[in-house]
Amino acid sequence: MNTQPLGVFDSGLGGLSVVRALWEVLPAESIVYFGDTGRFPYGTRSPGVIRRFARQNVHFLQSQGAKAIVVACNTASAHALPELRSTLDIPIIGVVEPGVRAALKHRKSGRLGLIATAGTVASRAYEQALEAIDPGVAMSSVATPLFVALVEEGWTHTEATRLIAEEYLRVFNNGSFDALILGCTHFPLLRPVLREVLGAGVALVDGAEATAHATREMLSKRDLLAGGGEPTHRFFVSDAPEKFATIGPLFLGRTFDGAEQVSIEEY
Amino acid sequence: MNTQPLGVFDSGLGGLSVVRALWEVLPAESIVYFGDTGRFPYGTRSPGVIRRFARQNVHFLQSQGAKAIVVACNTASAHALPELRSTLDIPIIGVVEPGVRAALKHRKSGRLGLIATAGTVASRAYEQALEAIDPGVAMSSVATPLFVALVEEGWTHTEATRLIAEEYLRVFNNGSFDALILGCTHFPLLRPVLREVLGAGVALVDGAEATAHATREMLSKRDLLAGGGEPTHRFFVSDAPEKFATIGPLFLGRTFDGAEQVSIEEY
Repeated sequence: MNTQPLGVFDSGLGGLSVVRALWEVLPAESIVYFGDTGRFPYGTRSPGVIRRFARQNVHFLQSQGAKAIVVACNTASAHALPELRSTLDIPIIGVVEPGVRAALKHRKSGRLGLIATAGTVASRAYEQALEAIDPGVAMSSVATPLFVALVEEGWTHTEATRLIAEEYLRVFNNGSFDALILGCTHFPLLRPVLREVLGAGVALVDGAEATAHATREMLSKRDLLAGGGEPTHRFFVSDAPEKFATIGPLFLGRTFDGAEQVSIEEY
Repeated sequence: MNTQPLGVFDSGLGGLSVVRALWEVLPAESIVYFGDTGRFPYGTRSPGVIRRFARQNVHFLQSQGAKAIVVACNTASAHALPELRSTLDIPIIGVVEPGVRAALKHRKSGRLGLIATAGTVASRAYEQALEAIDPGVAMSSVATPLFVALVEEGWTHTEATRLIAEEYLRVFNNGSFDALILGCTHFPLLRPVLREVLGAGVALVDGAEATAHATREMLSKRDLLAGGGEPTHRFFVSDAPEKFATIGPLFLGRTFDGAEQVSIEEY
């Protein structure tokens, strides 16, 4: 048993959707969250830069007493997880492998699809995770960077968004796909338009819930579960803490007290 | 006369459109360009962070021998110009005031419009510049963050882009606007769709050319013009130098040798 907080980081506030899932699955756990809003977005950056950012984020969460780390950012999971695991002495879980396992549950006979940032797609991390779990299954990936900007702008239900989705998703619309992995924390907010464009035949898989279940399993195995008691939650960002009040609830599903600002370059 | 280079910086590669205008207006000047691709975009960041980035960018350009600085980034011009001018001993010119002066040339009896990033609009820098030059003229501003993402994605001519432009530009479509300032280096690439949505009655004003003319005037006044000789041009970025080869020509209007990478946090 361990009542220290679970550390969660993301490139911004989208990772709060993972916090929401963790609250559901692990209601007794305290959480310390870091959203790297000052260096958002990660999806267009190069691998070396993403790895440096990820290391600093983990160091900050460790300074806040984190007992384990959830990398809620797909791009950071894709590029930095192996290095973080090999160089740091703290349990670390990412969103990629849980997302692949969740998608495989929906598989009948067809392929899996992935939509994600350019960085995540270029990393081929999802393909590698699938290859390790079930090498017989094929996957097709499309980078959909405009989806991030559309969600940030709050345009999740406009006609323009539908046209952009039709263009991006064309490849997945031929009947040969069983499941589409939403490989970015922003994309679950686009579920209605994705459903409209893809029809009912393709399962839309959000890695957040699968990641929360994988986190519970990992904490349990290492005897790190909090047990009882009242959890406390703290939120930190590297820029514009005032946006937390307006954008946070979109992902968290509830309002929450403000976030504190951190000088992340010092970690 | 002074053959040292002119320093130009932007949050990314969009500022290369200013370099293109400088080549036209000041063909003898050598240029050293810094694109802060590792910390792009500036438009969503807070003023203190933007000012810190701008100081580092100028320090880097000074380390490369710059005799004067052109701030090609609207967001940095809007937030950092007064501080840079008051704390640094090098001539500095931004894109805001030249853009306002260029727009006023198109004015008949109506208002001026501005489209820009959220950061530039929130700064009210264009309104303040207009107030200082001609306080009798009114201006309306709209933040159009999706335009940046659409240009980065190369989607400058799609139906979705037209719908997004219609939504953003609705306020400018009532016949009372003489000119619309394109207050972000990416927006000139959207001229065709902006023209289609706004009709022929509204002048589309790009600050790049006006900034180049203002730069010539400033260099001439301080006796800093290069005179004759063959200019040399160097390009630096803080991440992903390979993108310079593909995105650079969009803004530069020609291909150019690669860019070098800089660790900008060290300046």
